Amino acid sequence: MARIALDAMGGDFAPQATVAGALLALAELDPAHSIQLVGQTAVVDAHLRALLDGELAAHARHRDRISIIEAPEVIEMTDRPSAVVRGKPNSSMAVGLRLQPDGLSDAFVSAGSTGAQMAASMVILRLHAGLKRPAIATFFPSSRRTVVVLDSGANVDCSPEELVQFARLGATYAECVMRRANPAVGLLSIGEEPEKGNAATKEAHQLLRQSGLNFIGNVEGRDLPAGGTEQHAVDVVVCDGFVGNVLLKFYEGVAPLMVDTLQKEGFNPDDIRAGLKHLDYSEHGGAPLLGVKGVSIIAHGKSSPRAIKNAVKAAVQAVTSGMNEQIGQRLSVAAENAA
Amino acid sequence: MARIALDAMGGDFAPQATVAGALLALAELDPAHSIQLVGQTAVVDAHLRALLDGELAAHARHRDRISIIEAPEVIEMTDRPSAVVRGKPNSSMAVGLRLQPDGLSDAFVSAGSTGAQMAASMVILRLHAGLKRPAIATFFPSSRRTVVVLDSGANVDCSPEELVQFARLGATYAECVMRRANPAVGLLSIGEEPEKGNAATKEAHQLLRQSGLNFIGNVEGRDLPAGGTEQHAVDVVVCDGFVGNVLLKFYEGVAPLMVDTLQKEGFNPDDIRAGLKHLDYSEHGGAPLLGVKGVSIIAHGKSSPRAIKNAVKAAVQAVTSGMNEQIGQRLSVAAENAA
Repeated sequence: MARIALDAMGGDFAPQATVAGALLALAELDPAHSIQLVGQTAVVDAHLRALLDGELAAHARHRDRISIIEAPEVIEMTDRPSAVVRGKPNSSMAVGLRLQPDGLSDAFVSAGSTGAQMAASMVILRLHAGLKRPAIATFFPSSRRTVVVLDSGANVDCSPEELVQFARLGATYAECVMRRANPAVGLLSIGEEPEKGNAATKEAHQLLRQSGLNFIGNVEGRDLPAGGTEQHAVDVVVCDGFVGNVLLKFYEGVAPLMVDTLQKEGFNPDDIRAGLKHLDYSEHGGAPLLGVKGVSIIAHGKSSPRAIKNAVKAAVQAVTSGMNEQIGQRLSVAAENAA
Repeated sequence: MARIALDAMGGDFAPQATVAGALLALAELDPAHSIQLVGQTAVVDAHLRALLDGELAAHARHRDRISIIEAPEVIEMTDRPSAVVRGKPNSSMAVGLRLQPDGLSDAFVSAGSTGAQMAASMVILRLHAGLKRPAIATFFPSSRRTVVVLDSGANVDCSPEELVQFARLGATYAECVMRRANPAVGLLSIGEEPEKGNAATKEAHQLLRQSGLNFIGNVEGRDLPAGGTEQHAVDVVVCDGFVGNVLLKFYEGVAPLMVDTLQKEGFNPDDIRAGLKHLDYSEHGGAPLLGVKGVSIIAHGKSSPRAIKNAVKAAVQAVTSGMNEQIGQRLSVAAENAA
């Protein structure tokens, strides 16, 4: 059973979307799992009542798997991410994360400020031994299977060693949570050959060959939508957080361009939008922040109730798969092998 | 009038596609312009005759605007790009480029090895004063106007100063060749705020503010398909060649994924492919290598006759617009201002 703390106050459409998403998630999850809505109790409770009296009345039977945890402070867009833990220790972000080291919760989900969630997760959950930084893993739909891309924005100017750590984190996630056997890892670069790339990727390529991971070599931009090279399907693609973040946002912007373009050619834009729905981020349930001791799932700021539901489900999968313990074990084995 | 040297031997479908592309281009260009087909004379001539006796018989009247220039050596995929000029001085790449400093041609177009074309262009055409490296400019279709993105692969690990030079090159191209008045320049990063990004982009942001260019600030991945931010349309987007190349190849791979996805939802893939044709690189006629003293247009390795035609037309536009002289002038003014 998993207890998922959900930041009820985080996201552009909170708390309406977060509270509704919690109810939708509970309806689909095994009854053993529960949700802790973290936020201003009166506000959260009012939204919960309104939903259960109204459009989500059919979900009333899940009410007893929801608890509300008071967090009086609210993070503003103007708050500096790095100052949230100290500056607003009673915000939903800080309170929700602290439940894990206190043994009261198994995972945290937020659609609030990504920077604040990352900083607070590092301080409150702490990092596994040997890591300098966590990585944000995101999911790219492809013509083959969904590809895990990391880092997607937690780190810029990464060292080769950090890229290898991302590979290890991503491979563990793919294996434990996505049930991929012996996941194939690719290094994002600008040519297949090991000598293609920038300084960090060229060195990372050599390190990955000796990493014990199932490293298939460099992959290029085109291999992401294709789900791999001609020779190899890929499960995990490693890059620095600058490249990963640019790509992620580019990808989010491509579908609207496709809809626009096809509309000008006479297609019905609603039909196209519906046809592309599987490419939508909200299907993929939030991006896990990997490397922290615990579970912290970053949902999109514009999360709908459906996106929140999928993020909560991703958190449950992370907990029940034992991902966090596996990451800890594999990092320590890798450190021993390197020593 | 412009004399365009075309590497008849370069590209996956050469010389058939290159010779056919030359004829298609001449049919659309002003009669003052001519094409020099550079390659093994016997091979090129045989293809030209066959096309004029067959499917392109209607183009026979353009034959007198084509000359064939002998280049006996052929570049192989296994040749090291940097060794082409010295190792194969009589290849179509080296011979075709040398026509410019010899005063015999105004531009060079090739669908051959990008690396070889870049290296040979730097050696044979040389760089404008003050530049360390050229940049490859590519064209991204967007929901607004086409966006020029550079660098798209000539340089990795760029310094902030190089990023500013790319901005200047791209802005001159947008103004002279694409006729954009006071082109808006954006710096690709991972957030709008000047302090977001990696070390090079953060410093480049400050330098761009003082560059005299119409700098609109950072743009994000999503602003490329959107053609700008909510506030500003963008004409030129600057990034290092690693990021630019990953994005370019990613973009090339996205349309097939969209076709795949929509086909699974019941759409006719041929209809979708036809509807997305304006997003195809072959519409955009090759990528200019900016910063060299002359015109060198890099066409896609898989160029069709249509793509070659558009690359030749892009070369003519570059010549007739006086782009090269403008770039030289603006770089020297910028250098004086900085001194």
